[in-house]
Amino acid sequence: MRFSKLFVPTTKETPKDATLPSHAYLIRAGFIEQLGSGLYNFMPLGKMVLDNIKSVVKDEMDKAGAQEVIFNFITPSTFWKESGRYSAYGKELLRFKDRKENEFILSPTNEESAVEMVRNKITSYKQLPLHLYHINTKFRDEARPRFGLLRGREFLMKDGYSFHEDEEDLAREFDLMHETYTKIFTRLGLNFRAVDADSGAIGGSGSKEFMVLADNGEDDIIVCDKCSYAANIEAAKRSKKTSKAQKPEFNMMSKFHTPNINTIEAVANFFKVDKFYTIKAVIKKAIYEDKSEIVVFFVRGSDELQEVKALNACGALELEDASIDEIEKAGIVAGYCGPAGLGENINFYIDSELKGERGLICGANEKDYHIIGFNVLSFKDSRFKDLVAVQSGDECLVCGGKLSITKGIEVGHIFKLGQKYSAPMNANFLDRNGKSVPFFMGCYGIGVSRLVAVAVESKHDEKGMIWNKELAPFELIIIVSSIKDEEQMKFGEEIYEFAKNLGIKVILDDRNERFGVKMSKFELIGFPYAIIVGKGLKDSKVELITRDGLEKKEISISEIKECIKELLS
Amino acid sequence: MRFSKLFVPTTKETPKDATLPSHAYLIRAGFIEQLGSGLYNFMPLGKMVLDNIKSVVKDEMDKAGAQEVIFNFITPSTFWKESGRYSAYGKELLRFKDRKENEFILSPTNEESAVEMVRNKITSYKQLPLHLYHINTKFRDEARPRFGLLRGREFLMKDGYSFHEDEEDLAREFDLMHETYTKIFTRLGLNFRAVDADSGAIGGSGSKEFMVLADNGEDDIIVCDKCSYAANIEAAKRSKKTSKAQKPEFNMMSKFHTPNINTIEAVANFFKVDKFYTIKAVIKKAIYEDKSEIVVFFVRGSDELQEVKALNACGALELEDASIDEIEKAGIVAGYCGPAGLGENINFYIDSELKGERGLICGANEKDYHIIGFNVLSFKDSRFKDLVAVQSGDECLVCGGKLSITKGIEVGHIFKLGQKYSAPMNANFLDRNGKSVPFFMGCYGIGVSRLVAVAVESKHDEKGMIWNKELAPFELIIIVSSIKDEEQMKFGEEIYEFAKNLGIKVILDDRNERFGVKMSKFELIGFPYAIIVGKGLKDSKVELITRDGLEKKEISISEIKECIKELLS
Repeated sequence: MRFSKLFVPTTKETPKDATLPSHAYLIRAGFIEQLGSGLYNFMPLGKMVLDNIKSVVKDEMDKAGAQEVIFNFITPSTFWKESGRYSAYGKELLRFKDRKENEFILSPTNEESAVEMVRNKITSYKQLPLHLYHINTKFRDEARPRFGLLRGREFLMKDGYSFHEDEEDLAREFDLMHETYTKIFTRLGLNFRAVDADSGAIGGSGSKEFMVLADNGEDDIIVCDKCSYAANIEAAKRSKKTSKAQKPEFNMMSKFHTPNINTIEAVANFFKVDKFYTIKAVIKKAIYEDKSEIVVFFVRGSDELQEVKALNACGALELEDASIDEIEKAGIVAGYCGPAGLGENINFYIDSELKGERGLICGANEKDYHIIGFNVLSFKDSRFKDLVAVQSGDECLVCGGKLSITKGIEVGHIFKLGQKYSAPMNANFLDRNGKSVPFFMGCYGIGVSRLVAVAVESKHDEKGMIWNKELAPFELIIIVSSIKDEEQMKFGEEIYEFAKNLGIKVILDDRNERFGVKMSKFELIGFPYAIIVGKGLKDSKVELITRDGLEKKEISISEIKECIKELLS
Repeated sequence: MRFSKLFVPTTKETPKDATLPSHAYLIRAGFIEQLGSGLYNFMPLGKMVLDNIKSVVKDEMDKAGAQEVIFNFITPSTFWKESGRYSAYGKELLRFKDRKENEFILSPTNEESAVEMVRNKITSYKQLPLHLYHINTKFRDEARPRFGLLRGREFLMKDGYSFHEDEEDLAREFDLMHETYTKIFTRLGLNFRAVDADSGAIGGSGSKEFMVLADNGEDDIIVCDKCSYAANIEAAKRSKKTSKAQKPEFNMMSKFHTPNINTIEAVANFFKVDKFYTIKAVIKKAIYEDKSEIVVFFVRGSDELQEVKALNACGALELEDASIDEIEKAGIVAGYCGPAGLGENINFYIDSELKGERGLICGANEKDYHIIGFNVLSFKDSRFKDLVAVQSGDECLVCGGKLSITKGIEVGHIFKLGQKYSAPMNANFLDRNGKSVPFFMGCYGIGVSRLVAVAVESKHDEKGMIWNKELAPFELIIIVSSIKDEEQMKFGEEIYEFAKNLGIKVILDDRNERFGVKMSKFELIGFPYAIIVGKGLKDSKVELITRDGLEKKEISISEIKECIKELLS
């Protein structure tokens, strides 16, 4: 390809809302353009990167035995009513009517369509397993689209759905997909971790997220410094925490007057004990489909409540902060709430690590009083849930290593769905015993268009983007310094043709522009390598620049072809 | 690929609304399934055909210098308001609102998006020409979706948009696309014609349709038996028609009493003249954006009015049949309407071929009277328009050859848009004279998913589909007659591996099914070739079946590999 023919509308203006390098660079370099909130067109260079990603994803999915299909983007609402998600899915699900007043949705994901494609067609365990996937447009009407392609509304996703005769075969496919995703993200040159994850709105019995480590990531990931353990903070576990701080000695449980001592810090100071030995109450308003109520979560004073864990504990759709009014109305004394003697009419949960702990301090459920020497003994098992946010420095549950927090961007998510969709949608088959049972399903997603931005987030510098060879729209750019110099142009054309014939993705910068302009475009766009054909040609030399690090090397023209071969073919 | 692993949910049931072979076969063979009215999912075999079509289209578009992009499917209404199509486009345009009450459309085509991508980025003639295309989902909310993929609502289209500095360069690109489309449809193995076309709702100054000739086509195409002239009947021209019938001789124009003679047939009988020498009035109600009125079209008694030509003549949005009431209210005498003495307050048009003709018979605009010896002389030029439907047997305007009518299905359409979109959307550039002018644009569409069905319509038999090599999901199927016969299975595997290593798209039917079932599936699906490994293997023979014609040939196993090579590699 000749640069003079390519549509690369670069711009010096960075959009106001572009707070991330990927967002700013992709627009400035003419890869994408914004059409509306969360809506982006792909221009030729962006489309090429997208195609490169798609072809890696397709290649590995096919190798793993999955079969590509197309589910309609416009889906009749009937299927989503069968699964129950038509009403349960929030405002992100765009619902509309056609000219005949029939209801439809713009697919944000395709579990229902996949079930519909298979039910009544696969009727026996003999036809299983089956894995269908597609790479197609999705729409989620995000409340706050942001970060360019990272949180858009219309986007490209690879979503796959597998069907199995039992949990065991589902587990086999889940592991195969774990392996396949690892191959995909490795080929894409990304620094990623597969982490334990919460299953969220998709649901199911187990899931793993693939996270690319990036400073600008929206997600907190817990990683172990010794073993391979990694988890999204929403799902992270740790060894039961201990403390080296002096444990307070109380002879017996008793009520203590603590006027105006209504924060954990104040309590620890007042009693001169470490916060570890106190119990903190976090009071929330839980929203259910048909009601809302106050729920109290108790964790150690030294811990923080993890909101998604809390949400899963009480099974609500959402948690909101509770107002003082609402708290008091529920019969709770704000600032002095504790598990000891809290009415059974109040819904509360206690972090599992507190189970059986003795000699703690907590609120007395009476203004200006705390209880000391409290033992966490007399609660039924269902009150105890994993509620805490793992912290940096906590111990790994697997190996005892040190955990730390790092930032990540989700690029893939694999789920064991089990019968969550097949059961309500009556998608059954005859198993080995001749019994009609719903399929065991898995689902597997990759954010294809998001990956364009993620690749930039994970590798760039202050001058622009840095693509790896597999993703780059072109692997090599030949920059002819002055196209009016016939010698330069001739030699540029010669090595351009040479590289092209080797099957290398190469572009010739034959534009009538100043050398500085050409260089800064190369740096901004971030092709992996550039060969500069300039004044040095008189001395039989050209320059090779590696974009990653911008290292320059003079190379004799007698050696340049060999050098191109070695680097890129 | 092994057939036992492939998801091919064939069915014996033909959907009730499947009146066309392509519709019935694609569903019965498990290529597609219906999800709702005009909505079809593609299953693995269907997806493979679609990908084969896409890759031919992309290959030829890229060779022609066009660049692939992605326009959003969800388009903000603002752009369509700028072009004026938000209100002008009918109910096929699906309009909806997002959670913030912003208006959007589901793109049925992307002229506006293309203009938006280029304006303010291309600023000088030096950056022209430019051709951007994409292959993506479209939605048209058809009033009556039918014929399976031929008239669906969600479909896949390749649409390209080119930008030029003048009409001349646009004409060059138009010709290049004519050539490119010819290459594409030739590679797809289709029997097609490029025909002159009416530009319809997209508009512009000239257009050509690519029509695949097929008995079940929705379109009438006029073709010449001598030269390459071909046109959609909506745009077809002919040599001025003459008649060998005896011309009536009238000494002078006069009114004649013709009681109850109010049809052309009756008039011709009454006067004992050929209908060719009479003038017929076709009276319509023309609907404009802001009004409706009665319009009269005059053609020879031996001709038929072509509705699209009539529509273009009067510039209305739509033509409806007029009721007797409406006709009389307009001051027209039904059954006796003629151009002679028709009030100037009535809007009427006369077919161009009648201009200057003498001695005709027409209505006298008075009940029970006709005029004889009428000369079509005293009308202003703007009354004369091409109004007639070309008929089988008419003479070719280009070469004098005989024209005939054949049926076709539209698969591509290329348009010279000129400044129809760039002008209202203020998409300007500086031309060679430093003047700011709107881009000259072309647009070029191919119905990609429709082509899957068209290929079937154009080639099939009573047993099923017949794919050509380029389109077929697999070019060759190796059918092992009995998989329990080790010899058969071993030889089947051997030639399967052999063909695979040659890069041939090959599938091994290793299913535990009766031979008859395997054969009928091969015939229904329509892979180009089958090799049957059966009982003949004992005598060192296999059978080669060519799907087109179902011709069978015994081949020695020592020759089969050479035979595969010759046929397919």
